[in-house]
Amino acid sequence: MQRHFDAELANLKRRLLHMSALAETMIAEALEVLVNRREEFIPLVRQREEEVNALQRELDEACLEMIALHQPTAGDLRFILGVAKTNADLERLADQAVNILNKAERLLHQPPLQPFAILSEMADIARGMLKDSLHAFVNRDVAQARAVLQRDDELDARKSRITVELATYMTRDPSTVSRALDLVLVARNLERIGDHATNIAENTIFVVEGRDVRHHAEADTAPTG
Amino acid sequence: MQRHFDAELANLKRRLLHMSALAETMIAEALEVLVNRREEFIPLVRQREEEVNALQRELDEACLEMIALHQPTAGDLRFILGVAKTNADLERLADQAVNILNKAERLLHQPPLQPFAILSEMADIARGMLKDSLHAFVNRDVAQARAVLQRDDELDARKSRITVELATYMTRDPSTVSRALDLVLVARNLERIGDHATNIAENTIFVVEGRDVRHHAEADTAPTG
Repeated sequence: MQRHFDAELANLKRRLLHMSALAETMIAEALEVLVNRREEFIPLVRQREEEVNALQRELDEACLEMIALHQPTAGDLRFILGVAKTNADLERLADQAVNILNKAERLLHQPPLQPFAILSEMADIARGMLKDSLHAFVNRDVAQARAVLQRDDELDARKSRITVELATYMTRDPSTVSRALDLVLVARNLERIGDHATNIAENTIFVVEGRDVRHHAEADTAPTG
Repeated sequence: MQRHFDAELANLKRRLLHMSALAETMIAEALEVLVNRREEFIPLVRQREEEVNALQRELDEACLEMIALHQPTAGDLRFILGVAKTNADLERLADQAVNILNKAERLLHQPPLQPFAILSEMADIARGMLKDSLHAFVNRDVAQARAVLQRDDELDARKSRITVELATYMTRDPSTVSRALDLVLVARNLERIGDHATNIAENTIFVVEGRDVRHHAEADTAPTG
């Protein structure tokens, strides 16, 4: 029975890692559409979103079944609740990649603004946080989870910087307002991807330490002074 | 044993409703600071946030305990997983009220823009969705849950309208860019409050029908055409 349970647990982790890899790819591809106008990625991102959504439903049901069937001990039960939480975060994180894609898609039909390298940097940080948070979660690695929490500040600092830059841009050349506004919102989408990775890191600590480190202050610093 | 379980279930519901009422008040108070410059609400919102965070931790632990202690049947187990999901949504929804407050607080020190009635309308819709989604959840009322899902479109339509209005404003008078940008972001915060209420409505359907209605397309319509 325990061996059966452990095999199912390994299977849950495998599926979480697969979802996370899909979401990471979605972020990278949405940025390719945004930054390099690679239209061919648009249908790929949408297809991966479907896959993530299906995986999320399956994982929720798998969690319920495992609890009902195996009546796991306190520690395993906490881990399965952690899987359900992480599952929800991954699905919403993937939604943010789609939100970026939607903006990238409408910017395709407009003259390009100057490239904003900070957005690509933000995407790289967010993807790294995602990858590390999942690794921390499935391996119950609290040290790695705490390292993810710290990276969130890097993301927030860049979000504030690009928001100030874009506001200056809009002020100087009002014809850019609509396009620059879309980029402000992309920066927010990337910030939210980081928030979900942070949640997943916190789920790790919730599972391992049986206590809660959530509710560190959310950075919401002035974008324009 | 069943009677004991039912009493604990009633207690879970009571605490969820209390969290939800706190979050509703936080939204109303943050809007008072934003729209009517009522500074005296600032410490109240922050205090309620602490309370929501404490409640969230307690509820997660209560869910774990109930499962471990009572080994509930499939239906009750699904409901408790629904409580854990709804709990997470309520806490993040309250964070959005704090994000609105942070912007309202920095706008206090700047000359007012014209009043944007749509923001107050959006807040009223979002609060109504929150209240109804919780009512639907604790009463397992699928019809009411579906009504909440439909209201999300009202919120999204207003978000798009105010974003277009504010973009026009920024284009005509570049000195308003920084302040108008904050209001665009407030509209996004209100939209996210509606998203969380939608999630809670979907949790209701997940619990009652044992299947999943999530992943209806997320509205992310063009803000500026």
